[in-house]
Amino acid sequence: MKTRAAVAFEAKKPLEIVEVDLEGPKEGEVLVEIMATGICHTDAYTLDGLDSEGIFPSILGHEGAGIVREVGPGVASVKPDDHVIPLYTPECRQCKSCLSGKTNLCTAIRATQGQGLMPDGTSRFSYKGQKIFHYMGCSTFSNFTVLPEIAVAKIREDAPFQTSCYVGCGVTTGVGAVTNTAKVQVGENVVVFGLGGIGLNVIQGARLAGANKIIGVDLNPDREEWGRKFGMTDFLNVKGMSREDTIARIVQMTDGGADYTFDCTGNTEVMRTALECCHRGWGESIIIGVAEAGKEIATRPFQLVTGRVWKGTAFGGAKGRTDVPKIIDWYMNGKIQIDPMITHVLSLEEINKGFDLMHAGESIRSVVVY
Amino acid sequence: MKTRAAVAFEAKKPLEIVEVDLEGPKEGEVLVEIMATGICHTDAYTLDGLDSEGIFPSILGHEGAGIVREVGPGVASVKPDDHVIPLYTPECRQCKSCLSGKTNLCTAIRATQGQGLMPDGTSRFSYKGQKIFHYMGCSTFSNFTVLPEIAVAKIREDAPFQTSCYVGCGVTTGVGAVTNTAKVQVGENVVVFGLGGIGLNVIQGARLAGANKIIGVDLNPDREEWGRKFGMTDFLNVKGMSREDTIARIVQMTDGGADYTFDCTGNTEVMRTALECCHRGWGESIIIGVAEAGKEIATRPFQLVTGRVWKGTAFGGAKGRTDVPKIIDWYMNGKIQIDPMITHVLSLEEINKGFDLMHAGESIRSVVVY
Repeated sequence: MKTRAAVAFEAKKPLEIVEVDLEGPKEGEVLVEIMATGICHTDAYTLDGLDSEGIFPSILGHEGAGIVREVGPGVASVKPDDHVIPLYTPECRQCKSCLSGKTNLCTAIRATQGQGLMPDGTSRFSYKGQKIFHYMGCSTFSNFTVLPEIAVAKIREDAPFQTSCYVGCGVTTGVGAVTNTAKVQVGENVVVFGLGGIGLNVIQGARLAGANKIIGVDLNPDREEWGRKFGMTDFLNVKGMSREDTIARIVQMTDGGADYTFDCTGNTEVMRTALECCHRGWGESIIIGVAEAGKEIATRPFQLVTGRVWKGTAFGGAKGRTDVPKIIDWYMNGKIQIDPMITHVLSLEEINKGFDLMHAGESIRSVVVY
Repeated sequence: MKTRAAVAFEAKKPLEIVEVDLEGPKEGEVLVEIMATGICHTDAYTLDGLDSEGIFPSILGHEGAGIVREVGPGVASVKPDDHVIPLYTPECRQCKSCLSGKTNLCTAIRATQGQGLMPDGTSRFSYKGQKIFHYMGCSTFSNFTVLPEIAVAKIREDAPFQTSCYVGCGVTTGVGAVTNTAKVQVGENVVVFGLGGIGLNVIQGARLAGANKIIGVDLNPDREEWGRKFGMTDFLNVKGMSREDTIARIVQMTDGGADYTFDCTGNTEVMRTALECCHRGWGESIIIGVAEAGKEIATRPFQLVTGRVWKGTAFGGAKGRTDVPKIIDWYMNGKIQIDPMITHVLSLEEINKGFDLMHAGESIRSVVVY
């Protein structure tokens, strides 16, 4: 079949809207009509050529929501007309990682996904006879896409696509980092570095968990208002502040240090600050942001020996097929908000504008509606 | 009163055995006759001038066992003739840290202890009228010493001093890192870097916890026999091996990476290796070793984002007054061994020989018996 898609033909070039060829779903695969897709920093990271493992030409996009239109042989867990969210972290429920109960990092299709291919080692996309690669196993910048069955989460049908798509990455990453990875408990203190699309979701996750102080840290004073909308109790503008001063200030605001800190910036220096302002004895710092290739985090081991813990999280520690439907419920039941975060709704033809808005810091989230 | 003591008059000089003056216990303090004391790497670290916060002249030693001889006003938890182990990590049961239930790092007397003083800001030791500083709140290289009540753990009277003293640091640090900090469970895999006095105790802690594979890593082939005595199942001699090869080998030996790794070397490069050979998704690396001043640990944040956890531990996460008596019970009941680790028993006059044996790698633990 033919489908409209925004193709990344090469790094550092705008996406091109063209009609590509899409093969139907093979065994264990499903064809999904994407109804809406968010534009995430990770898409920009790849498009900007910062990801050393980026593959071109490819169809980016990994934060979508849509409707199953066709299923391949052997597919049992979803059927045509089901509403689904594509999962860049699948959940096979069979591999060592899934069965461990300790991680969401399913390894069933990791190798081929990293190569921009479906599990059988081929691509379903082509353009004028040339192979186009998949991206993060999702490629939601195509109106129709093919996904492994284990990489779609079935969701309730009354959830609007335009906002639900954000659960495919940003919402789950932020909220899940609090609930799955940190397991923040009522009354604890939380510090969030970077109040973008992920940081705001960490904030509302912390509010949901009953955190006491929820301190937002950013260089942009406009983000204070954003943070407060989602439950931030205190704002710290660290523009021009040294690392030492930032740490001293946070230690003072939290009476000794934070119980949990979250890095949502991808900046390795901020990651260090986030660790070192944790409370001696028990504070945990969780890295969410994706760092530039080759950058390293560092600290004195004394920071860990005196009880601080350094962790990270991917997709908020969420097991996609199990947890994404729950997060959609939280949204539909008003436990968390998504609507105010969708600052821009675009057509596919306007997708490059979405990247511009993100780079300019003008959007929290831009969503393309097909 | 007068007491014999080995005094560190300055850094990088041998200890001198002299008779010092000791004031009796003030309110909340106890006078303890030290019967035996181990010589630990941390004493050497300070004596060698590597600890930028080292204070001289002082009486080193922090791994002792002895008998309460006198108590000051207000002391209620111990009485004369009680057998005790001095605690460099006290347990006041009143401070924010103790009450948190999340850490053993009691802060009640931290400030004065770091200054080589008793909680009232003075020293009990002097020599020819000159103040001699306390060390780690213990100063077990003195036959008699004064300690805060919250810094002694009462133990059973049938435990021999010559071996029990090792519970004052090495045994608790190693075994506790497994049971309190990592909380290793039956069937999990453990890798221990550095098979000295701490590493061997990590090994026996892992055996006690029912670990599956217990892999010991060292550069010294003589340590294989030592490791196997305490439960090590596999030995990896990494002499001449690159970090990449070491990680690849351990990942292969553990079918994907270790569940828990422990650094007992104090080498920041080894700390990195220990983290990076952990299993993707859940492996935890615990830093026990004390690094040289100014050295930093580093890794790519991707290691944490993909589920590895970096932690540290001090005194094995043990709450001294509560946990030390339990570890003494484990020893007396045969759950753990100490006797074979005490490779050398010395008189106080021979104490400098103990440091030489340690530096030469010839001892696991030398103990001074008064």
